[in-house]
Amino acid sequence: MLELDFHPAGRHFLQIPGPSPVPDRILRAMSYPTIDHRGPEFGALGLRVLSGIKKVFQTTQPVVIYPASGTGAWEAALCNTLSPGDTVLMYETGHFATLWKKMAESLGLKPEFLGLPGVEGWRRGVQAPMIEARLREDTQHAIKAVCVVHNETSTGVTSDIAAVRRAIDAAAHPALLMVDTISGLASADYRHDEWGVDVTVSGSQKGLMLPPGISFNAVSQKALEASRHAKLPRAFWGWAEIIEMNRTGYWPYTPNTNLLYGLAEALDMIFNEGLDNVFARHQRLAEACRQAVRAWGLEIQCADPAVYSPVLTGVVMPEGVDADAVRKLIYERFDMSLGTGLGKVKGRMFRIGHLGDCNDLTLMATLAGCEMGLKLAGVKLAGSGVQAAMEYLGTHAPARPLRVAA
Amino acid sequence: MLELDFHPAGRHFLQIPGPSPVPDRILRAMSYPTIDHRGPEFGALGLRVLSGIKKVFQTTQPVVIYPASGTGAWEAALCNTLSPGDTVLMYETGHFATLWKKMAESLGLKPEFLGLPGVEGWRRGVQAPMIEARLREDTQHAIKAVCVVHNETSTGVTSDIAAVRRAIDAAAHPALLMVDTISGLASADYRHDEWGVDVTVSGSQKGLMLPPGISFNAVSQKALEASRHAKLPRAFWGWAEIIEMNRTGYWPYTPNTNLLYGLAEALDMIFNEGLDNVFARHQRLAEACRQAVRAWGLEIQCADPAVYSPVLTGVVMPEGVDADAVRKLIYERFDMSLGTGLGKVKGRMFRIGHLGDCNDLTLMATLAGCEMGLKLAGVKLAGSGVQAAMEYLGTHAPARPLRVAA
Amino acid sequence: MLELDFHPAGRHFLQIPGPSPVPDRILRAMSYPTIDHRGPEFGALGLRVLSGIKKVFQTTQPVVIYPASGTGAWEAALCNTLSPGDTVLMYETGHFATLWKKMAESLGLKPEFLGLPGVEGWRRGVQAPMIEARLREDTQHAIKAVCVVHNETSTGVTSDIAAVRRAIDAAAHPALLMVDTISGLASADYRHDEWGVDVTVSGSQKGLMLPPGISFNAVSQKALEASRHAKLPRAFWGWAEIIEMNRTGYWPYTPNTNLLYGLAEALDMIFNEGLDNVFARHQRLAEACRQAVRAWGLEIQCADPAVYSPVLTGVVMPEGVDADAVRKLIYERFDMSLGTGLGKVKGRMFRIGHLGDCNDLTLMATLAGCEMGLKLAGVKLAGSGVQAAMEYLGTHAPARPLRVAA
Amino acid sequence: MLELDFHPAGRHFLQIPGPSPVPDRILRAMSYPTIDHRGPEFGALGLRVLSGIKKVFQTTQPVVIYPASGTGAWEAALCNTLSPGDTVLMYETGHFATLWKKMAESLGLKPEFLGLPGVEGWRRGVQAPMIEARLREDTQHAIKAVCVVHNETSTGVTSDIAAVRRAIDAAAHPALLMVDTISGLASADYRHDEWGVDVTVSGSQKGLMLPPGISFNAVSQKALEASRHAKLPRAFWGWAEIIEMNRTGYWPYTPNTNLLYGLAEALDMIFNEGLDNVFARHQRLAEACRQAVRAWGLEIQCADPAVYSPVLTGVVMPEGVDADAVRKLIYERFDMSLGTGLGKVKGRMFRIGHLGDCNDLTLMATLAGCEMGLKLAGVKLAGSGVQAAMEYLGTHAPARPLRVAA
Repeated sequence: MLELDFHPAGRHFLQIPGPSPVPDRILRAMSYPTIDHRGPEFGALGLRVLSGIKKVFQTTQPVVIYPASGTGAWEAALCNTLSPGDTVLMYETGHFATLWKKMAESLGLKPEFLGLPGVEGWRRGVQAPMIEARLREDTQHAIKAVCVVHNETSTGVTSDIAAVRRAIDAAAHPALLMVDTISGLASADYRHDEWGVDVTVSGSQKGLMLPPGISFNAVSQKALEASRHAKLPRAFWGWAEIIEMNRTGYWPYTPNTNLLYGLAEALDMIFNEGLDNVFARHQRLAEACRQAVRAWGLEIQCADPAVYSPVLTGVVMPEGVDADAVRKLIYERFDMSLGTGLGKVKGRMFRIGHLGDCNDLTLMATLAGCEMGLKLAGVKLAGSGVQAAMEYLGTHAPARPLRVAA
Repeated sequence: MLELDFHPAGRHFLQIPGPSPVPDRILRAMSYPTIDHRGPEFGALGLRVLSGIKKVFQTTQPVVIYPASGTGAWEAALCNTLSPGDTVLMYETGHFATLWKKMAESLGLKPEFLGLPGVEGWRRGVQAPMIEARLREDTQHAIKAVCVVHNETSTGVTSDIAAVRRAIDAAAHPALLMVDTISGLASADYRHDEWGVDVTVSGSQKGLMLPPGISFNAVSQKALEASRHAKLPRAFWGWAEIIEMNRTGYWPYTPNTNLLYGLAEALDMIFNEGLDNVFARHQRLAEACRQAVRAWGLEIQCADPAVYSPVLTGVVMPEGVDADAVRKLIYERFDMSLGTGLGKVKGRMFRIGHLGDCNDLTLMATLAGCEMGLKLAGVKLAGSGVQAAMEYLGTHAPARPLRVAA
Repeated sequence: MLELDFHPAGRHFLQIPGPSPVPDRILRAMSYPTIDHRGPEFGALGLRVLSGIKKVFQTTQPVVIYPASGTGAWEAALCNTLSPGDTVLMYETGHFATLWKKMAESLGLKPEFLGLPGVEGWRRGVQAPMIEARLREDTQHAIKAVCVVHNETSTGVTSDIAAVRRAIDAAAHPALLMVDTISGLASADYRHDEWGVDVTVSGSQKGLMLPPGISFNAVSQKALEASRHAKLPRAFWGWAEIIEMNRTGYWPYTPNTNLLYGLAEALDMIFNEGLDNVFARHQRLAEACRQAVRAWGLEIQCADPAVYSPVLTGVVMPEGVDADAVRKLIYERFDMSLGTGLGKVKGRMFRIGHLGDCNDLTLMATLAGCEMGLKLAGVKLAGSGVQAAMEYLGTHAPARPLRVAA
Repeated sequence: MLELDFHPAGRHFLQIPGPSPVPDRILRAMSYPTIDHRGPEFGALGLRVLSGIKKVFQTTQPVVIYPASGTGAWEAALCNTLSPGDTVLMYETGHFATLWKKMAESLGLKPEFLGLPGVEGWRRGVQAPMIEARLREDTQHAIKAVCVVHNETSTGVTSDIAAVRRAIDAAAHPALLMVDTISGLASADYRHDEWGVDVTVSGSQKGLMLPPGISFNAVSQKALEASRHAKLPRAFWGWAEIIEMNRTGYWPYTPNTNLLYGLAEALDMIFNEGLDNVFARHQRLAEACRQAVRAWGLEIQCADPAVYSPVLTGVVMPEGVDADAVRKLIYERFDMSLGTGLGKVKGRMFRIGHLGDCNDLTLMATLAGCEMGLKLAGVKLAGSGVQAAMEYLGTHAPARPLRVAA
């Protein structure tokens, strides 16, 4: 039995930046009986989710759905388009950008890692001029791809992807543009087509409000063309066969049926709310969260207000305070999970997730848990973040009324 | 399909004083396939819930479980023990006491309704001396039963049941003592045996954290004896046959199988936490809630601190403020349901439920929703209730640590 | 935990004549979070189920939904319309008719019990001429109601309700006509209005495919008029207040919220299939079942082919065979539950349920379990019932194609 | 909404050889709320499933769990142990063996494909002597691995893995032994350690009764050693980091949380039944199925009784009958899914799955659906397979009594 003998009363608050809380409605959808992945009902389901997910990526091009978690989709992006020894220009926005680079090395690619020095790079978005400069130097076009993270989950910093595209174009460089928006999709505005992205990588357990286990590659025609000549070995991740079979709603191997049920339900929920309303909701909650952090007198990890993440907020601890000790205290006393600091910022900050199935009162509970926990941990606060967030939420109505008379 | 097309993102906060939020774990238990109510597995289930529920009533005597909602258990208590035209002494603590009295009239009984005058009676618990005085007058023992409400759901006032028993005994009166603790059971300390109650009435959708649909009569030997001579017609509600068949875990007619699954799970959860820990948790959350109300400068409906309810808190609006307009605003803007004022206090107060599957952060979300809503509704607040509640919860650790290292 | 440590692999076959197997889809619907029974969403749900359930009763008149099991709805029918000491004419079709009569006695009514002598009455439907004859004798109109069972669950015999109405009319008698179709509703064609029924009693756990816990009274204008003068005490069961509050989709006391979710889903399923298709499916499966019983050389409990039940089939054991021993063997060896013989036919027959969420292959599994079990129990069979049922199902296509191309 | 408007009544029979029907109990377990994959509860879950799954593989060595479907685990086995251009000896047992070989080519390996000529190879298990002979020729040890399928899902033929190990040993060849038992695990007796397998590949959606989405590599020390020198690029599939983090119950990237809940539940179910009882149950049901096929006068795809699959049975159609037309008829008329013929046997046979959560009556329903469907399709049958299967099941008691008195 999974039910634990010593389980707290009341609902756990899962406020990490993913996996985000899975709505009951999606859990129910996922408990539909598993069906024959070669039968006619499956084909209808397949066509439905393949069509819906394109709208979330804001693309008309193929989106490949993998029965695998997000890390796999990173690999898929690389091995479908590149050949052993290829140089890729990657940008260090934080821990996940660093892991992607490490993966590129494991696969036999040669990543170059751009970025601002020290921790500073982890507090700002991608500096498109640095990319442009580097590409201009690459007159031989040794660089085959530029890889950036749209919403860096380890820091709460987004990046201006359109600017990266402009940088590549300004350098007249043929490199592919590959973007990880694993934690940005369906929470932050993301435009695969308009921004000229060649491969977008994403996953299920963030804005899509699903459990982990599904991941995505949105693929441009240029990327498809590149895949015809790329020499990295690939089988499971290979786009061609999947895209071909997807025409009728099927997959070449057994897909993740019950998670696809969940995806169908998530898409219904998102489109019912309206994609723009979803984005506006995330922006509003994120701003309320930042109002709280500022009122506490604490620093936000993202140092550039232009690229604050609507998905999560990194909260930097004062000198001498171990962020993980604060997290542990909050977990044990208030039954709330917060995100740990990763890599270079381990122990220096924690992360508040406010993505997916989140609303005003859930955020208020979260901030109250943080405020009580910070005080109990002995952190000196300048004022009440909870008060500031209530002030903001009370005076800023949501873009879309919550309920409409029948 | 039940899923609504225009449904808010995030979780609804159901903070009425019942039905209380049903934990996922109980909803899952309720989705076990329905079984044969005459088969061996059912008998095992029946014995298990019949044994467990006694512990919650703190009794060793029979507890009858009805496949019906709480109002039915009121009727059962009356029709099993009384005869047409019998006088019953009832006490007006609030709206539900009034409804029970109305039911007694419908059934052909003659209720006498004691109570303090005007709204005042709705702000205090049962005045045992008034009961004692009335019983002393009744030298002919025309009064066959004394009926009181333990936790008046319409006001947030509990009553001292032991004192009522002492009053009856002091008057040396043979009347039965019948108590409604529909909203008190499994949230407030309740002692059927120790307090000498003859019939206790309760229901599933409050402290037991179940959906509505099951109700209870805990029955003393004296009540059983009375039932042998009582003349009100009864069939569905009749104790004798049910208690007889319950010996082997079955019921004379089809029981509420899936709700019994939920009850088995709820009992596991309650006993794992420990009944005393459950009570202490409710007391702590209730006090935090009252700290908030006081900080807002608003009045608590219960005027006697000795009988504050651990289950819900009634919040009185200042003159000129329509409590239901405030509730509506909070529902529409913050997706939270609060309890309406009922009967004599309609429009004058609202009720905050903090019972069942509730914890610190859920309460904080609730209070934040109230505070933002009150402000938006133009209610002048003396200070921040949210701040006061955080102060209280932060400085008062729960009786039982939430989590214990594995 | 409810999961049993020693549970067989594979799905249990619940082939009793109710509770019938609850489809996963309904169990999922029932696991929606419980909502405020006074909030706007609830009102919408209430109106929806109140409107839908009328179609199933084939009535335009009020249908009262009780948060109680079916036995309660029997009581409701009687206590809303009758006065202490009233004579009611009841007809003994089997065990459940007998229990209803017993209830009438408990409530202080004077039931007269018509019927054919001995076990014979349990093998045939209501003999309308006997009712007509008795009513003609009752020139003083002492008889206030005629009570019959439409689908006698203990025997698998239906009755011709229209004929009973004609009998009452032929006798020009003012008695109310009350009908129990607890196990017939939504499986057998039932026409509350057309057949001139005054009160129809039903429940959730049969053709409606829900767990037990909801029951119904469909009520004619004549019955409503009678209820204004009826003197049996009533409160919980009282129609007037419920019907009044139902106008806006609410109930005077806490309704059975999660079972109402299930009811909404069940109604969707039934109307999607089409009520006539549902009836035709039951008729077809019932005939296949009877083909099997005949091929085994066993007797069907119902001796009159005109009133075979589409819901269940009673199978009479040869002399000397204990039907319950056969049932036990089948339960233990093949993990299937069959209905026991009740009352006068205890040990002489068992009952096969083929109602609700049943299809061809489920029936075939059921019959195979019976056939193997009967043989293992040493019952001599004339031939293979399974073979006969396959022959019938294979050569009789369902009225409605199972699947339609998208 | 996923519920289809035009859905048949009753339960669909999913009798393909995987995904197999997912028990309700597992679907419920999978609907537990998603938790923090870095929190303490997750670590406990991780250790539990990692320990339990080893018992199913009958190994004490590491089992790697991938958040990906089975095809991915094929790739993992190859890319962790081999280098570009390596020769691998693969054996053509059927369609899935062929797909694995195709994958090896895609990854830049050089598979040699042994097998009996024509369709004959698809009717018999691996011929160990052919492997031994080929390895003896390979005196230079160019062959780095021998890859075979234990339970060929496309045909219903198992292979004697111990014999393959003996063949390798007899040839004194250092090649790794890699085995696919995707559809055999937890249904057929499989002994990773005893049989000396170096990498065993499996998946979740067969004997483990889970939805697709989890796959496995059980890994010998020799395989781990090989992985230190293997040069195929790998990242997502890399064993080392996963095995290292698994020590504390965690994964390097986001695992498939909700499917792991299901796995924990599945392991409980399997161990409660007893692994040997699970195997015996599959053998018994498979034999009953074959009795039916023989009685129909049809051929079983597996021509060697020594290697009949306990998981599925391939049924060969008479000349001129399109197996897929039969399947379609059965699907549309009886709402049952059967497995299609794949590759070389497309249209010539269909497959009956009798694995996972299957019992006697489910099998009987399945066979009845086949028998009725075959007749409706005009296939001449020699006799009743249903009769033969009932005869067998009735006279062969299960190894373990289904139910034990409480």
